[in-house]
Amino acid sequence: MNLILLFDDDFTDDPKRVRLTGRRLRHVQDIHRAAVGSTLAVGCVNGALGTGDILSIEKNVLEMAVTLDDSPPPPLPLTLILALPRPKVLNRVIIAATSMGVKRLVLLNAVRVEKSFWQSPRLSDENLLAQRVLGLEQAKDTRMPEILLKKRFKPFVEDELTALTAGTLKLAAHPYDAVPCPVNVAAPTTLVVGPEGGFIPYEMEKLKEVGFQAVSMGARILRVESAIPALLSRLFPL
Amino acid sequence: MNLILLFDDDFTDDPKRVRLTGRRLRHVQDIHRAAVGSTLAVGCVNGALGTGDILSIEKNVLEMAVTLDDSPPPPLPLTLILALPRPKVLNRVIIAATSMGVKRLVLLNAVRVEKSFWQSPRLSDENLLAQRVLGLEQAKDTRMPEILLKKRFKPFVEDELTALTAGTLKLAAHPYDAVPCPVNVAAPTTLVVGPEGGFIPYEMEKLKEVGFQAVSMGARILRVESAIPALLSRLFPL
Repeated sequence: MNLILLFDDDFTDDPKRVRLTGRRLRHVQDIHRAAVGSTLAVGCVNGALGTGDILSIEKNVLEMAVTLDDSPPPPLPLTLILALPRPKVLNRVIIAATSMGVKRLVLLNAVRVEKSFWQSPRLSDENLLAQRVLGLEQAKDTRMPEILLKKRFKPFVEDELTALTAGTLKLAAHPYDAVPCPVNVAAPTTLVVGPEGGFIPYEMEKLKEVGFQAVSMGARILRVESAIPALLSRLFPL
Repeated sequence: MNLILLFDDDFTDDPKRVRLTGRRLRHVQDIHRAAVGSTLAVGCVNGALGTGDILSIEKNVLEMAVTLDDSPPPPLPLTLILALPRPKVLNRVIIAATSMGVKRLVLLNAVRVEKSFWQSPRLSDENLLAQRVLGLEQAKDTRMPEILLKKRFKPFVEDELTALTAGTLKLAAHPYDAVPCPVNVAAPTTLVVGPEGGFIPYEMEKLKEVGFQAVSMGARILRVESAIPALLSRLFPL
């Protein structure tokens, strides 16, 4: 937690006073080992960054005076569309994408996505929010990404994808019939990443019909949690 | 497992016949659902890639006829020096680095590496080998990376690092006094990545004394398992 993300409910009647309990309080106590007078990095969800000066800290509650006067880092101009990863890696993938600045993440079905993945409790609103909070706290960001769940590939690609990606560079990470992944594109982009084992040819055809170009990262096949940072780091300038 | 990595012990007296048991057999049975006549991607550790045709498959053993006639993907011209990550992420970091083509990985102490990390059973020879095998199988590679454990920062940097990194571009991922991480360097490189919380100023001074330049990936702080793919993907051409 490189930043403590604050929500409306954390503020007292005084808009510069915050009370923390629960996970964030324990982190401040156990990891930061902060005390009265310590200053912590804070940020308001979808708002400004700043600092919090600890006024009091007890076993179950902490009070801070916050100053919010800095901007969060710029978002990536990217919609990331990801074949739903297996539950075991889903949390890490959401954290990785959020920490790198993705602001719209679509989790999509595909033939090689096991049906059971859609039943995972990790797809609950509560868990999807918790992982995004961890990603924002990691990257000292405040802008909450949007996550869309799309359980049907064909209607999504045929009926929604064109409007969703209008005016963007459309790339699909897929090693066949592909050009090398471009470096430092300066344009709004939509990137599609397939499941373990890849998209089937029919799925790639559907994506190509709506304007997607296959791009390759070379001969090595990467796990999705490595592929996403590798792709985003090549695509966007620092 | 995109490739089944073969070791000397797997071969029968016939140099083109292989017997598999244990983890790899179970994977072929449960994930590939392969049968007699199926062809699998195989590779010989530190040797060639090829295919294996299943001749027989029983509950506890499988026999294949292998043809080994292809080259593994080129390695990255990189030595990666990493402050020892916490045990919980160590396996994933080794898999990520191996799958991206790192062939020399140094795990180094630093002030912000907790002492207990060095006691982790994950540092056993057996586990370090198992994780590298997973990384090679993931990336369809055969060349086993070397892992060096360096428990003392100062003697390593002062006495060994200069010789180890002779003739390489020397970069340290560190956000202060840094230049942006370069793209597509065409040179042998040594990259140092610090611990959670970063190197302390003394450690960065020592690295600079032996020729390291700080490079930044921007304002966002990434987890080490995301930072490594992001850095390597920027540094090396596809």
